[in-house]
Amino acid sequence: MKLARCTDGGAPFWALVDTGAGTVKPIAGEFSDWAPRITRGDGESALSFSGAGRLLSEVRLLPPIERVNRVVIAGANYAKHLVEFGLKPPSQPVAFLKAYGALIGAYDPIRYPPLTDELDHEVELVAVIGATSVNLDDPLSSVLGYTVGNDVSARDLQRSGAAGIGMDLFAAKSQDQTTGVGPWIVTRDEFPPGSPKLGLTLRVNGEIRQDSNTSEMTWDVGQLICFVDERSRFSCGDILFTGSPAGVGMGTGLFLHPGDVVEAAVEGIGVLKNIVSEKSPRKGDPASTNAQK
Amino acid sequence: MKLARCTDGGAPFWALVDTGAGTVKPIAGEFSDWAPRITRGDGESALSFSGAGRLLSEVRLLPPIERVNRVVIAGANYAKHLVEFGLKPPSQPVAFLKAYGALIGAYDPIRYPPLTDELDHEVELVAVIGATSVNLDDPLSSVLGYTVGNDVSARDLQRSGAAGIGMDLFAAKSQDQTTGVGPWIVTRDEFPPGSPKLGLTLRVNGEIRQDSNTSEMTWDVGQLICFVDERSRFSCGDILFTGSPAGVGMGTGLFLHPGDVVEAAVEGIGVLKNIVSEKSPRKGDPASTNAQK
Repeated sequence: MKLARCTDGGAPFWALVDTGAGTVKPIAGEFSDWAPRITRGDGESALSFSGAGRLLSEVRLLPPIERVNRVVIAGANYAKHLVEFGLKPPSQPVAFLKAYGALIGAYDPIRYPPLTDELDHEVELVAVIGATSVNLDDPLSSVLGYTVGNDVSARDLQRSGAAGIGMDLFAAKSQDQTTGVGPWIVTRDEFPPGSPKLGLTLRVNGEIRQDSNTSEMTWDVGQLICFVDERSRFSCGDILFTGSPAGVGMGTGLFLHPGDVVEAAVEGIGVLKNIVSEKSPRKGDPASTNAQK
Repeated sequence: MKLARCTDGGAPFWALVDTGAGTVKPIAGEFSDWAPRITRGDGESALSFSGAGRLLSEVRLLPPIERVNRVVIAGANYAKHLVEFGLKPPSQPVAFLKAYGALIGAYDPIRYPPLTDELDHEVELVAVIGATSVNLDDPLSSVLGYTVGNDVSARDLQRSGAAGIGMDLFAAKSQDQTTGVGPWIVTRDEFPPGSPKLGLTLRVNGEIRQDSNTSEMTWDVGQLICFVDERSRFSCGDILFTGSPAGVGMGTGLFLHPGDVVEAAVEGIGVLKNIVSEKSPRKGDPASTNAQK
Protein backbone atom coordinates (compact mmCIF):
# COMPACT_ATOMS: atom_id res chain seq x y z
CA MET A 1 0.00 0.00 0.00
CA LYS A 2 1.00 3.58 -0.59
CA LEU A 3 -0.08 6.02 2.14
CA ALA A 4 0.21 9.74 1.53
CA ARG A 5 -0.50 12.85 3.55
CA CYS A 6 -2.16 15.40 1.30
CA THR A 7 -4.08 18.60 1.09
CA ASP A 8 -6.50 19.90 -1.48
CA GLY A 9 -6.15 23.37 0.01
CA GLY A 10 -7.82 22.60 3.32
CA ALA A 11 -6.71 20.60 6.37
CA PRO A 12 -4.15 17.87 5.69
CA PHE A 13 -5.50 14.33 5.40
CA TRP A 14 -4.03 10.86 5.04
CA ALA A 15 -5.00 8.87 1.96
CA LEU A 16 -4.50 5.53 0.26
CA VAL A 17 -2.86 6.15 -3.10
CA ASP A 18 -3.61 4.17 -6.24
CA THR A 19 -0.91 5.25 -8.65
CA GLY A 20 -2.38 3.06 -11.43
CA ALA A 21 -5.75 4.75 -11.28
CA GLY A 22 -4.22 8.11 -10.37
CA THR A 23 -6.46 8.53 -7.31
CA VAL A 24 -6.25 9.05 -3.56
CA LYS A 25 -8.91 7.82 -1.07
CA PRO A 26 -9.05 9.82 2.19
CA ILE A 27 -8.58 7.64 5.28
CA ALA A 28 -10.97 8.09 8.23
CA GLY A 29 -9.74 8.38 11.80
CA GLU A 30 -6.46 9.27 13.42
CA PHE A 31 -3.06 8.10 12.17
CA SER A 32 -2.33 6.87 15.70
CA ASP A 33 -5.38 4.58 15.48
CA TRP A 34 -4.86 2.92 12.10
CA ALA A 35 -1.07 3.03 11.68
CA PRO A 36 -0.34 0.52 14.49
CA ARG A 37 -2.82 -1.90 12.93
CA ILE A 38 -1.19 -1.74 9.52
CA THR A 39 2.20 -2.02 11.19
CA ARG A 40 0.98 -5.24 12.88
CA GLY A 41 0.11 -6.61 9.45
CA ASP A 42 -3.66 -6.11 9.23
CA GLY A 43 -3.35 -4.70 5.69
CA GLU A 44 -6.02 -2.57 4.04
CA SER A 45 -8.66 -4.02 6.38
CA ALA A 46 -7.20 -1.71 9.06
CA LEU A 47 -8.44 1.28 7.05
CA SER A 48 -11.82 2.87 6.67
CA PHE A 49 -12.37 5.71 4.27
CA SER A 50 -14.12 9.04 4.43
CA GLY A 51 -15.18 11.58 1.86
CA ALA A 52 -14.90 11.43 -1.88
CA GLY A 53 -11.84 10.12 -3.68
CA ARG A 54 -9.64 12.70 -5.37
CA LEU A 55 -7.38 12.75 -8.37
CA LEU A 56 -3.76 12.31 -7.31
CA SER A 57 -2.89 15.09 -9.74
CA GLU A 58 -5.20 17.50 -7.91
CA VAL A 59 -3.82 17.15 -4.36
CA ARG A 60 -0.56 18.48 -2.96
CA LEU A 61 1.58 15.79 -1.38
CA LEU A 62 2.79 16.84 2.08
CA PRO A 63 5.61 15.32 4.12
CA PRO A 64 4.13 12.04 5.44
CA ILE A 65 4.52 13.02 9.09
CA GLU A 66 2.33 15.06 11.44
CA ARG A 67 3.65 18.06 13.32
CA VAL A 68 3.41 16.29 16.71
CA ASN A 69 6.00 13.81 15.50
CA ARG A 70 9.72 14.20 15.31
CA VAL A 71 12.29 13.81 12.59
CA VAL A 72 15.38 11.85 13.63
CA ILE A 73 18.46 11.59 11.45
CA ALA A 74 20.91 8.74 11.91
CA GLY A 75 23.92 9.71 9.87
CA ALA A 76 27.47 8.59 9.19
CA ASN A 77 25.98 5.38 7.83
CA TYR A 78 27.68 4.92 4.44
CA ALA A 79 31.46 4.53 4.67
CA LYS A 80 32.26 6.28 1.36
CA HIS A 81 30.18 9.33 2.32
CA LEU A 82 32.33 9.81 5.43
CA VAL A 83 35.44 10.10 3.25
CA GLU A 84 33.82 13.20 1.68
CA PHE A 85 34.03 14.83 5.11
CA GLY A 86 37.53 13.55 5.86
CA LEU A 87 36.10 11.40 8.66
CA LYS A 88 37.00 7.91 9.84
CA PRO A 89 34.07 5.51 10.33
CA PRO A 90 32.74 6.07 13.85
CA SER A 91 32.11 3.17 16.23
CA GLN A 92 28.39 3.94 16.42
CA PRO A 93 25.82 5.93 14.40
CA VAL A 94 25.41 9.69 14.76
CA ALA A 95 21.85 10.72 15.65
CA PHE A 96 20.24 14.14 15.84
CA LEU A 97 16.90 15.88 15.43
CA LYS A 98 15.65 17.95 12.50
CA ALA A 99 13.04 20.69 12.95
CA TYR A 100 9.61 19.86 11.51
CA GLY A 101 9.61 23.24 9.77
CA ALA A 102 12.51 22.06 7.61
CA LEU A 103 10.28 19.59 5.78
CA ILE A 104 8.71 20.03 2.35
CA GLY A 105 6.58 17.70 0.24
CA ALA A 106 7.53 15.71 -2.83
CA TYR A 107 7.08 18.53 -5.35
CA ASP A 108 7.51 21.63 -3.21
CA PRO A 109 10.34 24.07 -3.93
CA ILE A 110 13.54 23.79 -1.91
CA ARG A 111 13.98 27.15 -0.18
CA TYR A 112 17.54 28.46 -0.65
CA PRO A 113 18.29 29.85 2.85
CA PRO A 114 19.97 33.25 3.09
CA LEU A 115 22.86 32.29 5.41
CA THR A 116 24.46 29.61 3.23
CA ASP A 117 26.41 29.50 -0.01
CA GLU A 118 26.87 25.73 0.03
CA LEU A 119 23.46 24.09 -0.24
CA ASP A 120 23.85 20.34 -0.67
CA HIS A 121 21.71 17.24 -1.25
CA GLU A 122 21.54 13.89 0.57
CA VAL A 123 19.19 11.19 -0.70
CA GLU A 124 18.15 8.82 2.09
CA LEU A 125 15.84 5.92 2.82
CA VAL A 126 13.42 7.06 5.54
CA ALA A 127 11.70 4.61 7.91
CA VAL A 128 8.31 5.56 9.38
CA ILE A 129 7.60 4.21 12.87
CA GLY A 130 4.04 2.88 13.09
CA ALA A 131 4.04 0.99 16.38
CA THR A 132 3.24 2.67 19.69
CA SER A 133 6.57 1.39 21.02
CA VAL A 134 9.63 -0.27 19.52
CA ASN A 135 10.35 -3.93 20.23
CA LEU A 136 14.16 -3.92 20.52
CA ASP A 137 14.25 -7.66 19.83
CA ASP A 138 12.48 -7.14 16.48
CA PRO A 139 12.86 -3.46 15.62
CA LEU A 140 11.66 -3.76 12.02
CA SER A 141 8.26 -4.91 13.34
CA SER A 142 7.74 -1.29 14.47
CA VAL A 143 8.12 0.07 10.91
CA LEU A 144 4.90 1.09 9.13
CA GLY A 145 6.80 1.55 5.90
CA TYR A 146 9.43 3.50 4.03
CA THR A 147 9.63 6.77 2.17
CA VAL A 148 12.27 8.90 0.45
CA GLY A 149 14.11 11.83 2.03
CA ASN A 150 16.48 14.49 0.74
CA ASP A 151 18.31 15.79 3.83
CA VAL A 152 19.31 19.11 2.25
CA SER A 153 22.24 20.57 4.18
CA ALA A 154 24.05 23.90 4.42
CA ARG A 155 27.68 22.76 4.49
CA ASP A 156 29.31 26.08 5.35
CA LEU A 157 27.00 26.38 8.36
CA GLN A 158 27.69 22.75 9.25
CA ARG A 159 31.40 23.65 9.51
CA SER A 160 30.64 26.79 11.56
CA GLY A 161 30.20 24.81 14.80
CA ALA A 162 32.44 25.65 17.75
CA ALA A 163 35.75 23.87 18.27
CA GLY A 164 35.33 21.11 20.84
CA ILE A 165 31.57 21.04 20.43
CA GLY A 166 31.40 19.95 16.82
CA MET A 167 29.45 20.31 13.62
CA ASP A 168 26.52 22.73 13.72
CA LEU A 169 23.96 20.18 12.61
CA PHE A 170 21.07 22.45 13.65
CA ALA A 171 22.04 25.27 11.30
CA ALA A 172 23.04 22.80 8.59
CA LYS A 173 20.00 20.54 8.69
CA SER A 174 17.03 22.47 10.16
CA GLN A 175 16.80 25.33 7.67
CA ASP A 176 13.14 26.06 6.95
CA GLN A 177 11.51 24.34 3.95
CA THR A 178 14.54 22.57 2.58
CA THR A 179 14.14 18.82 3.26
CA GLY A 180 11.95 16.85 0.88
CA VAL A 181 10.11 13.81 2.25
CA GLY A 182 7.68 11.62 0.36
CA PRO A 183 6.00 11.22 -2.04
CA TRP A 184 4.26 8.58 0.15
CA ILE A 185 4.93 5.77 2.58
CA VAL A 186 5.17 2.34 0.97
CA THR A 187 4.13 -0.16 3.64
CA ARG A 188 6.69 -2.67 4.90
CA ASP A 189 4.73 -5.66 3.56
CA GLU A 190 5.65 -4.57 0.00
CA PHE A 191 9.33 -5.37 0.65
CA PRO A 192 11.12 -8.65 1.43
CA PRO A 193 11.69 -9.30 5.17
CA GLY A 194 14.75 -7.68 6.74
CA SER A 195 16.43 -4.33 6.28
CA PRO A 196 15.60 -3.01 2.79
CA LYS A 197 18.15 -3.50 0.01
CA LEU A 198 17.13 -0.79 -2.44
CA GLY A 199 18.87 1.33 -5.00
CA LEU A 200 18.90 5.04 -4.23
CA THR A 201 19.89 7.83 -6.54
CA LEU A 202 20.02 11.58 -6.64
CA ARG A 203 19.96 13.54 -9.88
CA VAL A 204 20.53 17.27 -10.38
CA ASN A 205 19.19 18.55 -13.71
CA GLY A 206 19.08 14.94 -14.89
CA GLU A 207 22.73 14.19 -14.03
CA ILE A 208 23.40 11.43 -11.50
CA ARG A 209 25.18 12.69 -8.37
CA GLN A 210 24.48 9.91 -5.84
CA ASP A 211 23.99 6.27 -6.85
CA SER A 212 24.15 3.54 -4.24
CA ASN A 213 22.12 0.87 -2.47
CA THR A 214 20.76 0.77 1.07
CA SER A 215 22.56 -2.58 1.45
CA GLU A 216 25.73 -0.44 1.73
CA MET A 217 24.62 0.96 5.10
CA THR A 218 27.07 0.42 7.96
CA TRP A 219 24.20 -0.09 10.42
CA ASP A 220 20.97 -1.51 9.02
CA VAL A 221 17.54 -0.01 9.64
CA GLY A 222 16.87 -2.23 12.66
CA GLN A 223 20.17 -1.32 14.29
CA LEU A 224 19.53 2.39 13.75
CA ILE A 225 16.04 2.13 15.26
CA CYS A 226 17.44 0.43 18.37
CA PHE A 227 20.31 2.93 18.66
CA VAL A 228 17.92 5.87 18.62
CA ASP A 229 15.15 4.29 20.70
CA GLU A 230 17.52 3.38 23.52
CA ARG A 231 18.52 7.04 23.75
CA SER A 232 15.17 8.73 23.13
CA ARG A 233 12.04 6.67 22.55
CA PHE A 234 10.14 6.69 19.25
CA SER A 235 6.46 7.52 19.09
CA CYS A 236 4.05 6.25 16.46
CA GLY A 237 4.47 8.49 13.41
CA ASP A 238 8.09 9.55 14.02
CA ILE A 239 10.37 9.23 11.00
CA LEU A 240 14.01 8.14 10.80
CA PHE A 241 16.40 9.22 8.07
CA THR A 242 18.98 6.47 7.65
CA GLY A 243 22.01 8.24 6.20
CA SER A 244 23.18 9.20 2.74
CA PRO A 245 25.71 7.60 0.40
CA ALA A 246 28.67 9.26 -1.31
CA GLY A 247 28.33 11.81 -4.10
CA VAL A 248 27.23 14.93 -2.26
CA GLY A 249 28.50 18.41 -3.11
CA MET A 250 30.74 18.40 -0.04
CA GLY A 251 32.85 15.78 -1.83
CA THR A 252 32.48 16.89 -5.45
CA GLY A 253 32.26 20.67 -5.02
CA LEU A 254 28.99 20.62 -6.95
CA PHE A 255 26.51 22.38 -4.68
CA LEU A 256 22.89 23.24 -5.45
CA HIS A 257 21.92 26.47 -7.21
CA PRO A 258 18.65 28.32 -7.77
CA GLY A 259 16.67 26.66 -10.53
CA ASP A 260 18.29 23.23 -10.12
CA VAL A 261 15.88 20.34 -10.52
CA VAL A 262 16.70 17.84 -7.77
CA GLU A 263 15.34 14.29 -8.01
CA ALA A 264 15.86 11.94 -5.07
CA ALA A 265 14.68 8.39 -5.69
CA VAL A 266 14.55 5.11 -3.81
CA GLU A 267 13.75 1.92 -5.72
CA GLY A 268 10.23 0.65 -5.10
CA ILE A 269 9.14 3.81 -3.34
CA GLY A 270 9.20 6.83 -5.63
CA VAL A 271 10.83 10.10 -6.55
CA LEU A 272 11.01 13.51 -4.88
CA LYS A 273 11.29 16.24 -7.49
CA ASN A 274 12.06 19.60 -5.94
CA ILE A 275 13.30 22.73 -7.65
CA VAL A 276 15.68 25.05 -5.80
CA SER A 277 14.23 28.55 -5.30
CA GLU A 278 16.00 31.84 -5.67
CA LYS A 279 18.08 32.59 -2.58
CA SER A 280 15.84 33.94 0.19
CA PRO A 281 16.69 37.44 1.38
CA ARG A 282 17.90 37.76 4.93
CA LYS A 283 15.12 39.29 7.06
CA GLY A 284 15.80 42.97 7.60
CA ASP A 285 18.52 43.01 4.93
CA PRO A 286 18.35 46.47 3.25
CA ALA A 287 19.44 44.93 -0.07
CA SER A 288 16.41 42.67 -0.01
CA THR A 289 14.15 45.60 0.81
CA ASN A 290 15.48 47.45 -2.20
CA ALA A 291 15.10 44.40 -4.38
CA GLN A 292 11.40 44.30 -3.54
CA LYS A 293 10.80 47.92 -4.46
CA MET B 1 0.49 36.67 35.14
CA LYS B 2 1.48 33.07 35.69
CA LEU B 3 0.32 30.64 32.99
CA ALA B 4 0.56 26.92 33.60
CA ARG B 5 -0.21 23.82 31.60
CA CYS B 6 -1.86 21.29 33.88
CA THR B 7 -3.82 18.11 34.13
CA ASP B 8 -6.22 16.83 36.73
CA GLY B 9 -5.93 13.36 35.26
CA GLY B 10 -7.67 14.18 31.95
CA ALA B 11 -6.57 16.14 28.89
CA PRO B 12 -3.95 18.85 29.52
CA PHE B 13 -5.25 22.39 29.82
CA TRP B 14 -3.74 25.85 30.16
CA ALA B 15 -4.63 27.85 33.25
CA LEU B 16 -4.07 31.18 34.95
CA VAL B 17 -2.36 30.55 38.27
CA ASP B 18 -3.05 32.55 41.44
CA THR B 19 -0.31 31.42 43.79
CA GLY B 20 -1.70 33.64 46.60
CA ALA B 21 -5.11 32.00 46.50
CA GLY B 22 -3.64 28.61 45.58
CA THR B 23 -5.92 28.21 42.55
CA VAL B 24 -5.80 27.69 38.79
CA LYS B 25 -8.46 28.96 36.35
CA PRO B 26 -8.70 26.95 33.10
CA ILE B 27 -8.24 29.13 30.00
CA ALA B 28 -10.70 28.73 27.09
CA GLY B 29 -9.52 28.42 23.49
CA GLU B 30 -6.29 27.48 21.83
CA PHE B 31 -2.84 28.61 23.02
CA SER B 32 -2.16 29.82 19.48
CA ASP B 33 -5.18 32.16 19.74
CA TRP B 34 -4.57 33.80 23.12
CA ALA B 35 -0.79 33.65 23.47
CA PRO B 36 -0.08 36.16 20.64
CA ARG B 37 -2.51 38.62 22.24
CA ILE B 38 -0.81 38.42 25.64
CA THR B 39 2.56 38.67 23.91
CA ARG B 40 1.34 41.88 22.23
CA GLY B 41 0.54 43.28 25.69
CA ASP B 42 -3.23 42.81 25.97
CA GLY B 43 -2.87 41.41 29.50
CA GLU B 44 -5.54 39.32 31.19
CA SER B 45 -8.21 40.80 28.90
CA ALA B 46 -6.82 38.45 26.21
CA LEU B 47 -8.06 35.49 28.22
CA SER B 48 -11.47 33.96 28.66
CA PHE B 49 -12.01 31.12 31.07
CA SER B 50 -13.81 27.81 30.94
CA GLY B 51 -14.85 25.28 33.52
CA ALA B 52 -14.50 25.42 37.28
CA GLY B 53 -11.39 26.69 39.02
CA ARG B 54 -9.19 24.07 40.68
CA LEU B 55 -6.89 24.02 43.64
CA LEU B 56 -3.29 24.41 42.51
CA SER B 57 -2.40 21.60 44.92
CA GLU B 58 -4.78 19.23 43.13
CA VAL B 59 -3.44 19.56 39.57
CA ARG B 60 -0.23 18.19 38.11
CA LEU B 61 1.91 20.86 36.47
CA LEU B 62 3.05 19.79 33.01
CA PRO B 63 5.87 21.27 30.91
CA PRO B 64 4.41 24.58 29.62
CA ILE B 65 4.73 23.58 25.97
CA GLU B 66 2.47 21.59 23.66
CA ARG B 67 3.71 18.57 21.76
CA VAL B 68 3.45 20.33 18.38
CA ASN B 69 6.09 22.79 19.54
CA ARG B 70 9.80 22.36 19.66
CA VAL B 71 12.43 22.72 22.34
CA VAL B 72 15.51 24.64 21.25
CA ILE B 73 18.64 24.85 23.38
CA ALA B 74 21.11 27.69 22.87
CA GLY B 75 24.15 26.67 24.87
CA ALA B 76 27.74 27.76 25.48
CA ASN B 77 26.31 31.00 26.87
CA TYR B 78 28.07 31.43 30.24
CA ALA B 79 31.85 31.78 29.95
CA LYS B 80 32.69 30.03 33.24
CA HIS B 81 30.55 26.99 32.33
CA LEU B 82 32.64 26.49 29.19
CA VAL B 83 35.77 26.18 31.32
CA GLU B 84 34.16 23.08 32.89
CA PHE B 85 34.28 21.44 29.49
CA GLY B 86 37.78 22.69 28.67
CA LEU B 87 36.33 24.85 25.89
CA LYS B 88 37.25 28.32 24.68
CA PRO B 89 34.36 30.76 24.26
CA PRO B 90 32.94 30.21 20.75
CA SER B 91 32.32 33.12 18.38
CA GLN B 92 28.58 32.38 18.25
CA PRO B 93 26.00 30.42 20.29
CA VAL B 94 25.56 26.68 19.95
CA ALA B 95 21.98 25.69 19.13
CA PHE B 96 20.32 22.29 18.96
CA LEU B 97 16.96 20.59 19.42
CA LYS B 98 15.74 18.53 22.37
CA ALA B 99 13.09 15.82 21.97
CA TYR B 100 9.70 16.69 23.46
CA GLY B 101 9.67 13.31 25.21
CA ALA B 102 12.62 14.45 27.32
CA LEU B 103 10.46 16.96 29.19
CA ILE B 104 8.93 16.54 32.64
CA GLY B 105 6.87 18.90 34.79
CA ALA B 106 7.89 20.87 37.85
CA TYR B 107 7.45 18.07 40.38
CA ASP B 108 7.80 14.95 38.23
CA PRO B 109 10.61 12.47 38.89
CA ILE B 110 13.78 12.71 36.82
CA ARG B 111 14.17 9.35 35.10
CA TYR B 112 17.71 8.01 35.50
CA PRO B 113 18.39 6.59 32.00
CA PRO B 114 20.03 3.18 31.72
CA LEU B 115 22.88 4.10 29.35
CA THR B 116 24.56 6.77 31.50
CA ASP B 117 26.56 6.85 34.72
CA GLU B 118 27.06 10.62 34.66
CA LEU B 119 23.69 12.29 34.98
CA ASP B 120 24.13 16.05 35.41
CA HIS B 121 22.03 19.16 36.02
CA GLU B 122 21.88 22.52 34.20
CA VAL B 123 19.58 25.26 35.51
CA GLU B 124 18.51 27.64 32.74
CA LEU B 125 16.23 30.56 32.04
CA VAL B 126 13.75 29.46 29.37
CA ALA B 127 12.02 31.93 27.03
CA VAL B 128 8.60 31.01 25.61
CA ILE B 129 7.84 32.37 22.14
CA GLY B 130 4.29 33.75 21.98
CA ALA B 131 4.27 35.63 18.68
CA THR B 132 3.41 33.97 15.40
CA SER B 133 6.72 35.20 14.00
CA VAL B 134 9.83 36.83 15.44
CA ASN B 135 10.58 40.47 14.73
CA LEU B 136 14.38 40.41 14.36
CA ASP B 137 14.52 44.15 15.05
CA ASP B 138 12.82 43.65 18.44
CA PRO B 139 13.16 39.97 19.28
CA LEU B 140 12.01 40.28 22.91
CA SER B 141 8.62 41.49 21.66
CA SER B 142 8.02 37.88 20.53
CA VAL B 143 8.45 36.52 24.08
CA LEU B 144 5.25 35.53 25.91
CA GLY B 145 7.19 35.06 29.13
CA TYR B 146 9.83 33.07 30.94
CA THR B 147 10.01 29.79 32.79
CA VAL B 148 12.66 27.62 34.47
CA GLY B 149 14.44 24.66 32.87
CA ASN B 150 16.80 21.98 34.11
CA ASP B 151 18.57 20.67 31.01
CA VAL B 152 19.54 17.33 32.56
CA SER B 153 22.43 15.84 30.58
CA ALA B 154 24.19 12.48 30.31
CA ARG B 155 27.83 13.56 30.19
CA ASP B 156 29.42 10.23 29.30
CA LEU B 157 27.06 9.96 26.33
CA GLN B 158 27.78 13.59 25.43
CA ARG B 159 31.47 12.64 25.11
CA SER B 160 30.64 9.52 23.08
CA GLY B 161 30.16 11.51 19.85
CA ALA B 162 32.33 10.64 16.86
CA ALA B 163 35.67 12.37 16.28
CA GLY B 164 35.24 15.13 13.71
CA ILE B 165 31.48 15.26 14.18
CA GLY B 166 31.39 16.34 17.81
CA MET B 167 29.48 16.00 21.04
CA ASP B 168 26.53 13.61 20.98
CA LEU B 169 24.00 16.20 22.14
CA PHE B 170 21.09 13.96 21.13
CA ALA B 171 22.07 11.12 23.46
CA ALA B 172 23.13 13.58 26.17
CA LYS B 173 20.11 15.87 26.11
CA SER B 174 17.10 13.99 24.69
CA GLN B 175 16.87 11.12 27.19
CA ASP B 176 13.21 10.46 27.97
CA GLN B 177 11.65 12.19 31.00
CA THR B 178 14.72 13.93 32.33
CA THR B 179 14.36 17.69 31.65
CA GLY B 180 12.25 19.68 34.07
CA VAL B 181 10.42 22.74 32.72
CA GLY B 182 8.03 24.97 34.66
CA PRO B 183 6.40 25.39 37.08
CA TRP B 184 4.67 28.02 34.92
CA ILE B 185 5.32 30.85 32.48
CA VAL B 186 5.63 34.28 34.08
CA THR B 187 4.58 36.78 31.43
CA ARG B 188 7.14 39.26 30.12
CA ASP B 189 5.25 42.28 31.50
CA GLU B 190 6.22 41.18 35.03
CA PHE B 191 9.89 41.95 34.32
CA PRO B 192 11.71 45.19 33.49
CA PRO B 193 12.22 45.83 29.76
CA GLY B 194 15.23 44.18 28.15
CA SER B 195 16.89 40.81 28.58
CA PRO B 196 16.11 39.51 32.08
CA LYS B 197 18.69 39.97 34.82
CA LEU B 198 17.67 37.28 37.27
CA GLY B 199 19.44 35.12 39.81
CA LEU B 200 19.41 31.42 39.03
CA THR B 201 20.41 28.61 41.35
CA LEU B 202 20.49 24.85 41.43
CA ARG B 203 20.47 22.90 44.68
CA VAL B 204 20.99 19.18 45.18
CA ASN B 205 19.69 17.92 48.52
CA GLY B 206 19.65 21.52 49.70
CA GLU B 207 23.29 22.22 48.79
CA ILE B 208 23.96 24.98 46.24
CA ARG B 209 25.68 23.69 43.08
CA GLN B 210 24.96 26.48 40.57
CA ASP B 211 24.53 30.12 41.59
CA SER B 212 24.67 32.85 38.94
CA ASN B 213 22.65 35.55 37.23
CA THR B 214 21.24 35.66 33.71
CA SER B 215 23.08 38.99 33.31
CA GLU B 216 26.22 36.82 32.97
CA MET B 217 25.03 35.44 29.61
CA THR B 218 27.45 35.94 26.72
CA TRP B 219 24.53 36.47 24.31
CA ASP B 220 21.36 37.91 25.76
CA VAL B 221 17.90 36.47 25.19
CA GLY B 222 17.19 38.70 22.19
CA GLN B 223 20.47 37.75 20.51
CA LEU B 224 19.80 34.05 21.06
CA ILE B 225 16.29 34.34 19.60
CA CYS B 226 17.65 36.03 16.48
CA PHE B 227 20.48 33.50 16.13
CA VAL B 228 18.06 30.58 16.21
CA ASP B 229 15.27 32.20 14.18
CA GLU B 230 17.61 33.09 11.31
CA ARG B 231 18.56 29.39 11.07
CA SER B 232 15.19 27.77 11.75
CA ARG B 233 12.10 29.85 12.40
CA PHE B 234 10.26 29.86 15.71
CA SER B 235 6.56 29.08 15.94
CA CYS B 236 4.22 30.37 18.61
CA GLY B 237 4.66 28.14 21.66
CA ASP B 238 8.25 27.02 20.99
CA ILE B 239 10.58 27.31 23.96
CA LEU B 240 14.24 28.35 24.09
CA PHE B 241 16.67 27.25 26.80
CA THR B 242 19.28 29.98 27.16
CA GLY B 243 22.32 28.17 28.56
CA SER B 244 23.52 27.19 32.00
CA PRO B 245 26.12 28.77 34.31
CA ALA B 246 29.09 27.07 35.97
CA GLY B 247 28.76 24.52 38.78
CA VAL B 248 27.60 21.42 36.94
CA GLY B 249 28.85 17.93 37.79
CA MET B 250 31.01 17.92 34.65
CA GLY B 251 33.18 20.50 36.40
CA THR B 252 32.88 19.41 40.03
CA GLY B 253 32.61 15.63 39.62
CA LEU B 254 29.36 15.72 41.62
CA PHE B 255 26.81 14.00 39.38
CA LEU B 256 23.19 13.17 40.21
CA HIS B 257 22.23 9.96 41.99
CA PRO B 258 18.94 8.15 42.60
CA GLY B 259 17.02 9.83 45.41
CA ASP B 260 18.67 13.23 44.97
CA VAL B 261 16.31 16.17 45.40
CA VAL B 262 17.12 18.65 42.63
CA GLU B 263 15.81 22.22 42.89
CA ALA B 264 16.30 24.55 39.93
CA ALA B 265 15.17 28.12 40.58
CA VAL B 266 15.05 31.39 38.69
CA GLU B 267 14.33 34.58 40.62
CA GLY B 268 10.81 35.91 40.06
CA ILE B 269 9.66 32.75 38.32
CA GLY B 270 9.72 29.73 40.62
CA VAL B 271 11.31 26.43 41.50
CA LEU B 272 11.44 23.04 39.83
CA LYS B 273 11.72 20.31 42.43
CA ASN B 274 12.42 16.94 40.89
CA ILE B 275 13.65 13.78 42.59
CA VAL B 276 15.98 11.44 40.69
CA SER B 277 14.46 7.97 40.21
CA GLU B 278 16.21 4.64 40.56
CA LYS B 279 18.22 3.88 37.43
CA SER B 280 15.92 2.53 34.69
CA PRO B 281 16.72 -0.99 33.52
CA ARG B 282 17.88 -1.33 29.94
CA LYS B 283 15.07 -2.84 27.84
CA GLY B 284 15.72 -6.53 27.30
CA ASP B 285 18.47 -6.57 29.95
CA PRO B 286 18.30 -10.03 31.64
CA ALA B 287 19.31 -8.48 34.98
CA SER B 288 16.26 -6.23 34.84
CA THR B 289 14.03 -9.17 33.91
CA ASN B 290 15.27 -11.05 36.97
CA ALA B 291 14.76 -8.01 39.15
CA GLN B 292 11.11 -7.88 38.12
CA LYS B 293 10.44 -11.53 38.99
